This record gives sequence, C-alpha cells and structure tokens, in this order.
Amino acid sequence: GNMGMESLDYEVVESLAYREDQAQRGMWRHISYITLKWLFALLIGVGTGLSAFFINISVENFSGWKFAATFAVMRHSYILGFLLYVLFNGALVFSSVYIVTQFAPAAAGSGIPEIKAYLNGIDTPGILLFRTLVGKILGSIGSVGGGLALGKEGPLVHTGACIASVLGQGGSTNYNVKWRWLRRFKNDRDRRDLVTCGCAAGVAAAFRSPVGGVLFALEEVTSWWRSQLLWRVFFTSAVVAVVVRTAMRWCGNGNCGHFGSGGFIIWDISGGQDDYSFYELLPMAMLGAIGGLLGALFNQLTIFLSSWRRNVLHKKGNRVKIMEACLVSLITSVLSFGLPLMTKCTPCPNPEKYPDVVCPRPSGQYGNYVNFNCHSESHYNDLATIFFNTQDDAIRNLFSTNTPREYNSYTLITFLVTFFLLALVTYGTAVPSGQFVPGIMIGATYGRLVGILVVNASNRDSVDEGTYALLGAASFLGGSMRMTVSLCVIMVEITNNLKLLPLIMLVLLISKAVGDAFNAGFYEEQVQLRGLPVLDSRPKRFMRNMSAKYTIGTKKVIQFSRISKVGHIVSVLRSNNHNGFPVIDWLHNGETVVIGLILRSYLIVLLQAKADFQHTPIPGDTRGRITFRYDVRDFAKPVSSKGVSIHDINISPAEMEMYIDLEPFVNPTPYIVPEDMSLTKVYNLFRQLGLRHICVVPRPSRVLGVITRQDLLPEV
Amino acid sequence: GNMGMESLDYEVVESLAYREDQAQRGMWRHISYITLKWLFALLIGVGTGLSAFFINISVENFSGWKFAATFAVMRHSYILGFLLYVLFNGALVFSSVYIVTQFAPAAAGSGIPEIKAYLNGIDTPGILLFRTLVGKILGSIGSVGGGLALGKEGPLVHTGACIASVLGQGGSTNYNVKWRWLRRFKNDRDRRDLVTCGCAAGVAAAFRSPVGGVLFALEEVTSWWRSQLLWRVFFTSAVVAVVVRTAMRWCGNGNCGHFGSGGFIIWDISGGQDDYSFYELLPMAMLGAIGGLLGALFNQLTIFLSSWRRNVLHKKGNRVKIMEACLVSLITSVLSFGLPLMTKCTPCPNPEKYPDVVCPRPSGQYGNYVNFNCHSESHYNDLATIFFNTQDDAIRNLFSTNTPREYNSYTLITFLVTFFLLALVTYGTAVPSGQFVPGIMIGATYGRLVGILVVNASNRDSVDEGTYALLGAASFLGGSMRMTVSLCVIMVEITNNLKLLPLIMLVLLISKAVGDAFNAGFYEEQVQLRGLPVLDSRPKRFMRNMSAKYTIGTKKVIQFSRISKVGHIVSVLRSNNHNGFPVIDWLHNGETVVIGLILRSYLIVLLQAKADFQHTPIPGDTRGRITFRYDVRDFAKPVSSKGVSIHDINISPAEMEMYIDLEPFVNPTPYIVPEDMSLTKVYNLFRQLGLRHICVVPRPSRVLGVITRQDLLPEV
Ligand SMILES: Nc1ncnc2c1ncn2[C@@H]1O[C@H](COP(=O)(O)OP(=O)(O)OP(=O)(O)O)[C@@H](O)[C@H]1O
Ligand SMILES: Nc1ncnc2c1ncn2[C@@H]1O[C@H](COP(=O)(O)OP(=O)(O)OP(=O)(O)O)[C@@H](O)[C@H]1O
Ligand SMILES: [Mg+2]
Ligand SMILES: [Mg+2]
Repeated sequence: GNMGMESLDYEVVESLAYREDQAQRGMWRHISYITLKWLFALLIGVGTGLSAFFINISVENFSGWKFAATFAVMRHSYILGFLLYVLFNGALVFSSVYIVTQFAPAAAGSGIPEIKAYLNGIDTPGILLFRTLVGKILGSIGSVGGGLALGKEGPLVHTGACIASVLGQGGSTNYNVKWRWLRRFKNDRDRRDLVTCGCAAGVAAAFRSPVGGVLFALEEVTSWWRSQLLWRVFFTSAVVAVVVRTAMRWCGNGNCGHFGSGGFIIWDISGGQDDYSFYELLPMAMLGAIGGLLGALFNQLTIFLSSWRRNVLHKKGNRVKIMEACLVSLITSVLSFGLPLMTKCTPCPNPEKYPDVVCPRPSGQYGNYVNFNCHSESHYNDLATIFFNTQDDAIRNLFSTNTPREYNSYTLITFLVTFFLLALVTYGTAVPSGQFVPGIMIGATYGRLVGILVVNASNRDSVDEGTYALLGAASFLGGSMRMTVSLCVIMVEITNNLKLLPLIMLVLLISKAVGDAFNAGFYEEQVQLRGLPVLDSRPKRFMRNMSAKYTIGTKKVIQFSRISKVGHIVSVLRSNNHNGFPVIDWLHNGETVVIGLILRSYLIVLLQAKADFQHTPIPGDTRGRITFRYDVRDFAKPVSSKGVSIHDINISPAEMEMYIDLEPFVNPTPYIVPEDMSLTKVYNLFRQLGLRHICVVPRPSRVLGVITRQDLLPEV
Repeated sequence: GNMGMESLDYEVVESLAYREDQAQRGMWRHISYITLKWLFALLIGVGTGLSAFFINISVENFSGWKFAATFAVMRHSYILGFLLYVLFNGALVFSSVYIVTQFAPAAAGSGIPEIKAYLNGIDTPGILLFRTLVGKILGSIGSVGGGLALGKEGPLVHTGACIASVLGQGGSTNYNVKWRWLRRFKNDRDRRDLVTCGCAAGVAAAFRSPVGGVLFALEEVTSWWRSQLLWRVFFTSAVVAVVVRTAMRWCGNGNCGHFGSGGFIIWDISGGQDDYSFYELLPMAMLGAIGGLLGALFNQLTIFLSSWRRNVLHKKGNRVKIMEACLVSLITSVLSFGLPLMTKCTPCPNPEKYPDVVCPRPSGQYGNYVNFNCHSESHYNDLATIFFNTQDDAIRNLFSTNTPREYNSYTLITFLVTFFLLALVTYGTAVPSGQFVPGIMIGATYGRLVGILVVNASNRDSVDEGTYALLGAASFLGGSMRMTVSLCVIMVEITNNLKLLPLIMLVLLISKAVGDAFNAGFYEEQVQLRGLPVLDSRPKRFMRNMSAKYTIGTKKVIQFSRISKVGHIVSVLRSNNHNGFPVIDWLHNGETVVIGLILRSYLIVLLQAKADFQHTPIPGDTRGRITFRYDVRDFAKPVSSKGVSIHDINISPAEMEMYIDLEPFVNPTPYIVPEDMSLTKVYNLFRQLGLRHICVVPRPSRVLGVITRQDLLPEV
C-alpha cells in the first residue's frame, strides 16, 4: 500500500477476550487507570516544558557565542569574522542534518502534517519513536542555532507528541526503557489522547501560550474531540506554563549563560497602540489582503519546491541532503552578513526627543540599534538589527514600539524579499524546521512597511509601527496556515496585549478568506503532498450521489470461515495487504451468518502463539478460558508499524494442516451499513467514530427494534 | 412522553425527494446557501451585540436613576429614600416577573441548561421562540435593574440562541415576519449550527470576551463539533466585539445617559499584581479549595431549592410566582439598604499616602468609597460600596487594585453570608437570571478576605487584594460551574490581564477537582433536575455488558408496510408516540426486506397533503415526479414542536380506505446495528452522529464488501 502507511484502530474490539477482561476489571483497576492518565498528562507537560527549555537555552547560547565571537574578531578583520560566522553556522547546520539523515529521518521537517495525519487515524512509520524525539530536539538546536530561516515551534509540537507517545508505550524497546505496567496504554485509542495532549503542550511551550496550545490542538490537528479531553489537555498546557516559568526564573538569576531576557518567545508589545481610528481599518484590512496573497504564494511555491525535492533531489540519497543543507546554510550566512555590510548606517535618533532609546546598543547585549560596520559611534545599521541577529531578537525589534522611523523602507523591502526566498528554500531541507517564526518575520516586515506608510500619511503620534508589524505577522500566518482562533489567541498571548484582539481577528478573517481563494492551508498542502490519506471533516460533494455498493464495486470480499485451516490463513494473509477480514459461520440450516471481523494483527498473534491450533475442525468451547491463555493486552498494537509481519512467522508444514477457531478473537460487532447508503453518510460514520473498517451488508430482512435516546439514558 | 420533549432530527433523510432535490441543486444554489450562512453569522453577531447593548444601557440607566433619586431623597428623609428604593426595585422586578409569567414562561431562569440540551439533540418546547427572546430581554432589564442577586450573562446566551433560531426559521409566524426564501434553514441541522453561533455570541457580548465565547460554546454547550464551524463561530464573536466596541464609543460621547464608564463588563485590573512569590501559591491553592467547597455547596442547595420550587411552589400558579419574586425583591432591597445603614463608616485613607484615591467619591458618580450615612465628609461606608450599588460596580470595587485595607473583614464576611443566601434564594424565581455575576461577587468577596489575610501575614507591598479577589471569583465559578478553559479565558479577557493566566489556571484546576468530589456542575445538575435527557459524552459503565438486543427487550416493533392503508396509518399514529417507524416490503419470493424508516412528521405531511392517496394497493412509479408535488422543504420541521399533531388532521372515511405508497418518503438508509452490539458502541454511534433512531437488525448473512479509508478519499 501507501508507502507502509496503515490506519489506526480506534474501534474497541469487543472480542470474547476483551469482554472477559472487562468483566474482571474492578474498581481499583479503573481508578489506577484514571490516575495514570493524569500522571501522564503531568509528565507530558513537564517533559515538553523541559525540552523546550533545553532547546531554547542551547540555541540562545550557541547564538550568543556566535555573535559575540564574530563581533570580537571583526574588530580585527572583517574577513576572519565572516569566516568564523560561516563556519559556526555551517557546523551547527551540518550536525543537525547529519543527525537527522543518519539516525532519525522522520525528524526532518515540521512534523505537524504527520501529527495531524496521526490524529486523523493514519500511522506514518517512525514518526513517534524515541529516536525521532532525540533527533528532533538535537536537530532543532542545530538548525535554529545555525541561523537558518526556520523556527523551532513546529518541531516542538512534534517533540511534545513524541514524548507523549514514548511515555504511552512505556519507553522504547530499543533502549531498554520499558515498563510492563504501562502496557495498558498500548492501544491506539489511549495513545491518541496522549498525543493530543503532547501536541497542545508543544504549542504551549513554543509560544508560552497555554490557551493557544489547547486551541491549536483543537482547531488544527485533531479531527475528533471529546470535552473531557479538553480538561486534560488544558491541564497539560498549564503544567507546561508553570515549568517554563520556573525555568525562566531560575535563568533570571544568571544561571543560563547567554539565555537571559530573550529566548522564550514573549514579545511584549503592551506599550503599543491601544486605540485606533476608523480610517486605520483600511490599511489594516489591506494588511490582511497582502497576507492572504503572500501566504498563498508562499504555500504554492513550497508545494513546487517540496515536490521537486521529494521526487528528484532527495531520491539521490543522504549525501545530497547533507550537501543541500550546508549550501543553504552558506547562502544564508553570506546574505545575512553581506547585505547588512553593504547597507549605509543611519544616525541614531535624537536623544533629546527619544530619551529612552539606547543607540547604538552596547555590544554583547540584546536590543535594537545594532552598530555593525558603522564608523561613527552614533550610527546604527538597521538591516543588521533584523538580519544579523537571532530571529527571536529580530522579531522583538520589528515589533518594538515607540521606535518610529527606526527602519528605512528600502531596508525592509530588501529584507522582505531576501528572507522570503530564504524561507522558501530552507523549508524542506532535511532538518527539523518550523514555519511560525519565518512567517512572523516576513509578516512583521511588510507590516512595518505599511506602518511606515501610515505614519507618513497620517503624521499622527498615536500610530505605532510595531503594532502594524504585529498585525502583519498575524496576516501572513493567517494567509499561509489558515488557522483562526488558535492563531489569534497565540498572537495575543505572545504579545501580551489583549486590546489588539479585535484587530487581529479582523486581519485574520481577511487573510484567511483571501488565501482560501487560491489554495489550501500550508499544512493541508503538505499533508496532500506526502500522500497522507487524511479525511477532511466534510465529505466531498461527489459522495452524495454514490452508494456504498457502488464504491466497493465488484471486488470479491476476502473472508474466513469460523474454523479455518492454518495454511489457508497464512496463504491468504500473504497474498494481500488487507487488515480486516469478515468471518462467517454456517447455521444448521445451511445459511451463512457473519460472526464478525478479524484484524490481521490478531491473526498474527494467534499464528505466533500457536496455542489455539487444533487438529479437528470442530469448534471447541473456549469461553471462560481464553483469558488464561491470552491477556487482552497481548493483542495490543505496538506503535508505528513495529509489528511482526506475516512473512516473519515460521510455521511447520504439520501445523499448516491444523485448524483454528477464530470465534473468540473476532470483533463480533463491526459497524455495518446497508448497501445503498450514500457515501456521505458512510463517510460521516467512518470519520466521526474514527473507524478503520465498515462492513457493507445487504438490506436487512427485518428490524428487531428501534433504539432511541430514551434507551440510552442511565436508569433512574 | 417526557413533558412534550422531542428529539431533533440531525440525520439527513436520503429520501427520493431529497435525492432529486440534491441532483437539481446547482452551483448557484450552493453558493447562495454558503453566503446565507455567513450572512446569518453576521446578523447573529450584530443582533446579539445590539441586544446586549440595549440591556446594558437600560439597566445602567434604571440603576443610575434609582441611586441618584434615592441619594437625593435621603438628604431629606431616610425613610422616604428607603421607600423609594424599595418601590423602584419592586416595580422593576414586578415588570420582569409579570412579562415572564404572562407572555414568555420559557424565558425564566438562565436558559443555558435548555440550550445545552438543545445542542445535545433535545427540543424543549418554546425555548427558542420570538416571544421568549422578547421576554428574555425585557425580563433581564427588570430583574437586573431591580437589583436582584442575579446577572444578565446567562440570559444573554439564551438571547443569542433565540436570535439565531428566529433568524433561521425566517422570522416568527405569529408576528408575520416571515421570509420564504429562508425555508432552506428550516431544518434541525442548520438550526443547530446557528444556535451554536448564537450561544458563543451571547457570551462574547456578555463579557466582551470573543475567544471566551467560542470556547464556552465548545466546552460547555455543544456536544459535537466540526472544525469548519469554529471558523464561523469565531466570526460571529468577532462581529459582536466590533458592534459592542462601536456602541461603547458612541456612548463615550455622552449619548447614553448614565451609561458611561460602567456597563459592559471589563474589570480592568491591569494595575494589579504581576508577580507572585512561591509562598503565595499556598493561599491561592486554598482559594481554589474554598471555591470548590462553596461552589459544590451552592450547587447542592440550589438543587434542593429548585426542586422544591418546581414540585411545590410553582405548581400553585403564576400569582404565587409573582408574589415570590416581589418578596425576594423586598428582602434584597431591605438588606442592601439596611445592612450598610447599620455599618459604621471608615475614615478615608491618608491622602498623602494614597494620592490617587478619591474619597469619598462625589455623589452621582461611580467609584469606590461611597459616602452612605456617614456624618463626616472624610468617611466612607465600605459595605455600601459593594452592597448599595450595581453589581458591575461592586465587582469593580472588589477587584480594585492599590486600595489596600479598603474593606473591613467583618464587612466582607457580612456581605458574603448575606449575598450567598440572597443568590441562593433568587435563583429559580420566575425571572431571567444568570449565575455568573453573583458567582463572581461571592468569589471576589472571600477572595478579598483571603487577600487581607495574606497582606496582614506578609506585610509586603507587592501583594494586592484585588488580585486575590479575582482569583476568588475564578475559584467560585470553577467550583460551581466546573468549566475550565472557557472560564479561564473569560476571566483573563474581562480583567484584561494575561499575566494572571497561570494563577487562574491553578485555581480553576483545584476548585473543579474539589467540587467534582461532591456533585456535578451547576448546569448539569439543572439539566438533570429538569429531566432533560442529555447524553453525556461518555457512555455509562453499565452499558458495556448490555447488548442492543437486551435493551430493546421484547417490545414489538411498530412498523408499516410499503403500501399501507391511510386508516391504518392514522390509527397507528394515534395509538402511540413514537416518531420513527420501519417500513418493510415483500420480495417476490415472499421474504421481507426493510426499505427504510419513516418519520412521523413525514407521515403527517403526507396525510395533510392527501396528494399521494391512491385507490389501489399497487405501487406506482413515482420516481422523478415527486419534486413536482413536494418541495423537500415541505418536510422541513418547524421549530419547537409547533408542528401539526395527528389529532388535528381530518380525514374522511372514504379517504381512510385509500392507500398510500410510502417508498418515496422513507429514509432508505437509517443507521443499523447488529443485535449483539454492546450498548457502549451503540451509544457512541448515536451520540457522535447526533442520531434519533437506530434500527437493531439480526446479524447479517453476508458481507458485500469492506469500506476502508482508501474508499473514502477523493479520487486523485
Ligand atoms: N477483506 C477484504 N476483502 C476485500 N476487499 C477488501 C478487504 N479489506 C479491504 N478491502 C478493500 O481493499 C482496498 C484497500 O484497503 P486496505 O487493504 O488498504 O485496507 P486495510 O489495510 O484493512 O486498512 P488501512 O489501509 O486503512 O490500514 C479498499 O478499497 C477496500 O475496499
Ligand atoms: N417504531 C417503534 N416500534 C417499537 N418501539 C419503538 C419504536 N420507536 C421507538 N420505540 C421504543 O419506544 C421507546 C420510546 O421511544 P420514543 O417513542 O420516545 O422515540 P421517538 O419519539 O421516536 O424519539 P424521541 O422521543 O427521541 O423524539 C424507546 O425505548 C424505543 O425503543
Ligand atoms: Mg492498508
Ligand atoms: Mg418521543
């Protein structure tokens, strides 16, 4: 099939084994199960918070050393400084791409499309493994620390999901971290809940935005939702917030090297514009439109580039991938060093008019007004302020309020074009990469440009360029990712300014609407590009006129009889890739009856165990005795297609002639639909319940009863 | 059945009529449908925003006149002032309870439980009518303006939902506001979406909290969710925010009488405590625990009181309801006037130490430090500041920052006890009433008490009583309503202080956990009390061991044959209350086959129209000709059980002998489950898809095919 992609089994298999297990399950086991769930939520929060902290502290320190060393050497020689800068960046990027290509190929890219697919019910191999987690963390440090035009936010979401999954499977088998008592969570249903928590935790950690995290999980990634889960997801996000806050405090005392005021994104623009006049709504709406256009353009170009990479470049092997990343790093270094070098410096603002401004900023500190290649002491280089800097600081500078006319329009245009192209080229290299921060950079740049125009046109003091930069950032993200509520909350939380909420909403509404006119959102496009069979929340229109019968066509159903020969089962399993098989039985009067559906994975467990092989085709009465032989958890599915394949099982010719009674292991109640149900309704059933197989059956001959709401209420 | 409650039909009836209608449906109709949806979202936003504005402006003006007049008269005579106060309050409350009892009984109470039930699939009669809308708006003005211990937030949610539903049904039939082209929205599916928008709009308008509104709809009321809807709900909330903001601006110019700074809830506490020491987490956690305990107590007591009211008091008729409300108003007036009168005044804070404080506040203005019955000009009455005041102002005063030691502990305790009891007694009187504002008042009071303790214990300047008041409010709401994410966001949005987010989260987590140990949330309890058959998101545990067959028991299915006698249909419909009936047909070989399920409402339309009556029991070929006779929208269900009953239909004896072919009108593909499916799985199917009827059928004899994800993907 589809490059090894398999669906997940969210449906409860109500087999005999399961029912017996349920019956034995006492209060105590129920309580321990609930406790464990909450404990996991806590651990996911702590783990993700700490990972985020680790990534941030490393990136900040690497960048800090890099810039400090470069500035120091530059005092003697520009060439040497440049070489140092290029080498430092190159080394970090190389380490990142090396780790990813050699040890954790699934860690490349953003990871959000894959997580989205996972929560929709599709298992991409390797996406939630321990090695992917490690690769993602280390790779992020390299790629972000190496100054590439990408961010660490997408990867953090993936990191959170990996942590959740690794916890849920009870550690990793390979690394011998494994707890048997955690086996209860080794099923797709529970893992899905954990991954949802992890995903929210990732966003919460990336942006220090706990509510935004919850909403992101809700809006962008999960395809289904239960309101109890909301509560647990929220708890996880809260834990992340506390962990991050505590860690930041600890760093506030100078324990963390270069990691001080910067690092965790919080671009506080609470000093910005509180109020706006009605005529300002026009440029703001314009920002929305620009964001929609540029976002759609960005999406479209990444599609072309990504598909070229997938189909041509990356087929050539890991060496090409490594070279590609190093080349991109080189180009980025050259541009971010060279372009500011060629820019003329600007005189510092009049200290009497702007007493708060420190210009140029003292070297070795963060802030605005970088003195880079300026010969006068009272000049600064505005391009260097945003280009020759870490991205977090650059954004902080772009958003900075009460610094009118800090940036020259030409500088901003230069930066916009260069960075847009860089971000385009960078996305898709074999390193962990997020799209949030580059998106914010691009948006903030044209936002500030529009802000300059408005300031010039209106000549009012109340207009603040930083606010426009923020709105620009929102518009580009909206135009590219097409999120709404979650993005809005994230923007508010990162800028810590609630008063801008209606404006951000306006801009997002417009940019999403404009973008939607051209193409789908960034993640959806990537999902499609990777061929991930994600089911949209809305059935397609053509499905209305198609019935289930038409869909299955004339394919013959591959099914088993209740008592089957082992050899027959093996040969059927080897001859196809299906994962679910109806099982039929014969009544005394010779009529057939469907007794259920059996999963391939169950059959494989049975074939491996060999405990149920019998010599005669006579059904034995196995009731009540299955649980002695199997734990229901033996049928639990391991994560990410690490299961055994039918081709790995050795069965002797004698055993091949034996029989096996499948009845205790079938799912006796798969969901069924009558043959003439329209595909729209089948689709809703499939997607809402997160199914994997639906059996199409002939019209029933009679109705035994009608179940209504009244039958489903708890007895009073 | 259940006091006239009926379920809603969310399932698409894929009848022949529907299919033909779909086939005709061109691109243009699709576009107009989408446009209309968004137009409705806009209108709901505007309508709800304006309603909220109207309610607020009225309440503020009534209260303003009331207090101004009382203060003025009091200068001459306390007795006269008191009488005026009592009469003013009494008159407003009387008008409210009179309107509600005489014209709009469904407008009494909060309305949130009923909306919750509606979105879960249960239609409570009258809950979404135009008269309910009017009653709710006017009633809220009376009850809140009349100074009762209740809020206008719950009613606003109901108002939003009513606006949505009235719009969706194309105006009200009774009042001759009706547009035929809106009939397309006359079905339960589209109405559900609209009501969800309305509900979010209500919260957004009540608290000026657009994100909170979206989350409230998501967490508290809806039982299902689609991510496309999120986008529309968000748009509606944004519109509300803009409308409210515009209206407030307009009022800022003095156009709105007493409505000025106050009114729309925004208790800006951005001046409050930004930082907290770790030892402060203890009293904050304590606040959470207190909130959980008091909230659970409040819930429990309201259950007792409400059930007594339902079963005893309110059975005695409208006159008793009116008297009850007036009595409660009298008690409230006496207490809110009398208790402050008996309180000793406090000297104003030292103006040198607190230069910003205006004490006592000039009469006729809003603010802290009310001079009420104080003989010295530099004294104020702290109880009057919170009790003899509108609730919005009282909360603002309780939340007020940088006013240490404004309130005496005894004052706060007196107020807490009195107000807690008042809120208890008031909830359930026959006026529109919300629980948010009283909850905030109660919580803020004990929060401020704890704050005073902490200030005394720590003697630090950084501790701010207003912040504790806010956390207290969060804790009580959390302990009573048990919302989490939405409440958290609402609290943050109304106080405009994002930095408190982690603290609010902490408090909410604790208070919800503590409260859950005692009873269910406020709204769930009310839902249960009213006997609304709401289905929880999680199936009950006992369902695991019950099969569908067991549930339907030995009841005989009431079904129709494809060609039935009119007289038979009429007599069957009259003999029971079921709403769905399987329809069977006979094959040539004499076997039966189920051709679908027909709804009572369809049968009634057919019986009314009489167009399909035929003289012989021979199936006619009606295909392709149904749409000439019926519009699929003729089968649309009117809102709130306003449909025709079978007892209203007159059919002549001759017609009774005629036949009718049901085939074109059945739903040919109801969802079916095999008889031995466990009730848990049936429950999930029922609830996730929002079904009304599920047919239980025998095990199928064969499987025609298996549908997997691959069959549901759009063809590439
Ligand atoms: N037992 C079966 N007999 C006949 N056709 C089947 C059977 N199972 C699946 N199919 C058909 O084969 C096609 C491919 O399905 P596939 O084998 O990939 O399903 P699966 O592997 O069971 O589930 P998934 O791929 O989602 O994990 C589908 O169109 C489906 O209709
Ligand atoms: N056609 C039918 N034949 C036999 N029993 C039925 C039929 N329809 C419903 N029932 C049974 O009657 C009981 C009451 O259902 P009820 O008649 O209230 O359903 P309804 O009115 O169709 O739906 P709702 O009340 O949810 O609007 C249920 O337990 C159900 O099993
Ligand atoms: Mg497959
Ligand atoms: Mg009924």
